[in-house]
Amino acid sequence: MTPDPAAAVVLLSGGQDSTTCLAWTLKRFRRVEAVTIDYGQRHRIELEAAVAVARLAGVPQSVIPCDSFRALGGNSLTGNEAVVDGVVAATGLPNSFVPGRNLVFLTLAAAFAWQRSIPHLVAGVCQTDFSGYPDCRQTTLDALQAALCAGMDFPFEIHAPLMHLTKAESVHLAQELGCLPWLAHSHTCYNGSRPACGTCPACRLRAKGFAEAGVADPLMMVR
Amino acid sequence: MTPDPAAAVVLLSGGQDSTTCLAWTLKRFRRVEAVTIDYGQRHRIELEAAVAVARLAGVPQSVIPCDSFRALGGNSLTGNEAVVDGVVAATGLPNSFVPGRNLVFLTLAAAFAWQRSIPHLVAGVCQTDFSGYPDCRQTTLDALQAALCAGMDFPFEIHAPLMHLTKAESVHLAQELGCLPWLAHSHTCYNGSRPACGTCPACRLRAKGFAEAGVADPLMMVR
Repeated sequence: MTPDPAAAVVLLSGGQDSTTCLAWTLKRFRRVEAVTIDYGQRHRIELEAAVAVARLAGVPQSVIPCDSFRALGGNSLTGNEAVVDGVVAATGLPNSFVPGRNLVFLTLAAAFAWQRSIPHLVAGVCQTDFSGYPDCRQTTLDALQAALCAGMDFPFEIHAPLMHLTKAESVHLAQELGCLPWLAHSHTCYNGSRPACGTCPACRLRAKGFAEAGVADPLMMVR
Repeated sequence: MTPDPAAAVVLLSGGQDSTTCLAWTLKRFRRVEAVTIDYGQRHRIELEAAVAVARLAGVPQSVIPCDSFRALGGNSLTGNEAVVDGVVAATGLPNSFVPGRNLVFLTLAAAFAWQRSIPHLVAGVCQTDFSGYPDCRQTTLDALQAALCAGMDFPFEIHAPLMHLTKAESVHLAQELGCLPWLAHSHTCYNGSRPACGTCPACRLRAKGFAEAGVADPLMMVR
């Protein structure tokens, strides 16, 4: 099985970062596919955003289900009970941290890519604003890349183009890549509102990034 | 969150190897939990075997669903179309290879363990008889362990007590550990028969191991 050096799979959640990554990937690779993981997101609107963005980009998109994390529970992004904004005292991590989630999602994207001889994987993880998520660090991605290469006997390369960018720099990158119109369809709000609530941590982080970049966010947001 | 050095999670598929690993783990750790992944196995009898073995061992068992691999398709262990015994020419790997499966299962076990402050993970993977599965090699487990530690910020240790044993040595180990009676309830047959068919590659491998060990397999098998 010969790896296609011009092919990449992007993990497309439908959020701002993965949407920007999709544009980044399209500039660098000839053959691009998007993979969206349906893990029982608190808000289905996120999945709809991923579909809309892939369609705008003209990229084939596959949705892979993953019901494991809802079953594991104990976090605020798939459950309905926990508060979103807070830190779990016992772990020192945000209660939105879902252990293993990014590792599993990237491994599923890799399994998908392996079946298609695609060696490049692109994810919108970001160390700068990593908010205490240990699976968003470059060291984690490096270790995971080694595990994927060994475990599937295939030369995977994980790209995280936003890894060391601030949110403002990400906005500038999106502007350069010409994907600001796609960001109107991306989803950020933790509360799943549309227009976005503008007050949850995710909305505030997004607004801050656009403000610092001096760029108007095309997303409709309650202000 | 303080890791409990006396606690371990065993990945229990209900097969011979993971059943032996459960007995191994009970000898070494004070607090043991079993995790079984329901990934849409071709044969539900495998899950029933895991339940039976955990009950015999008196170990709490949790079943974590994982519907991703059935959706990914393209392999013979979750689909219904492909033949079991064969090698896929394009990859040089057995067509029973499900890319990423062991990586995802161990990551899910780690997520489960993380929620319970359990650092030790035990899996019945085996390099000796690895039959071309790249995710059963020690190098893969080493790389995955590094990824899990980095990705969840927790000192996981993956144990694979059967890694360098032949099937005959595994049978001797089971005998030493006193878990041969459990093996009567373990499931091996690829065809999902009970009594086991005795002719599929999995049955033949099992029979060969017991024969070489000079031990009678307590499992009912068509002979």
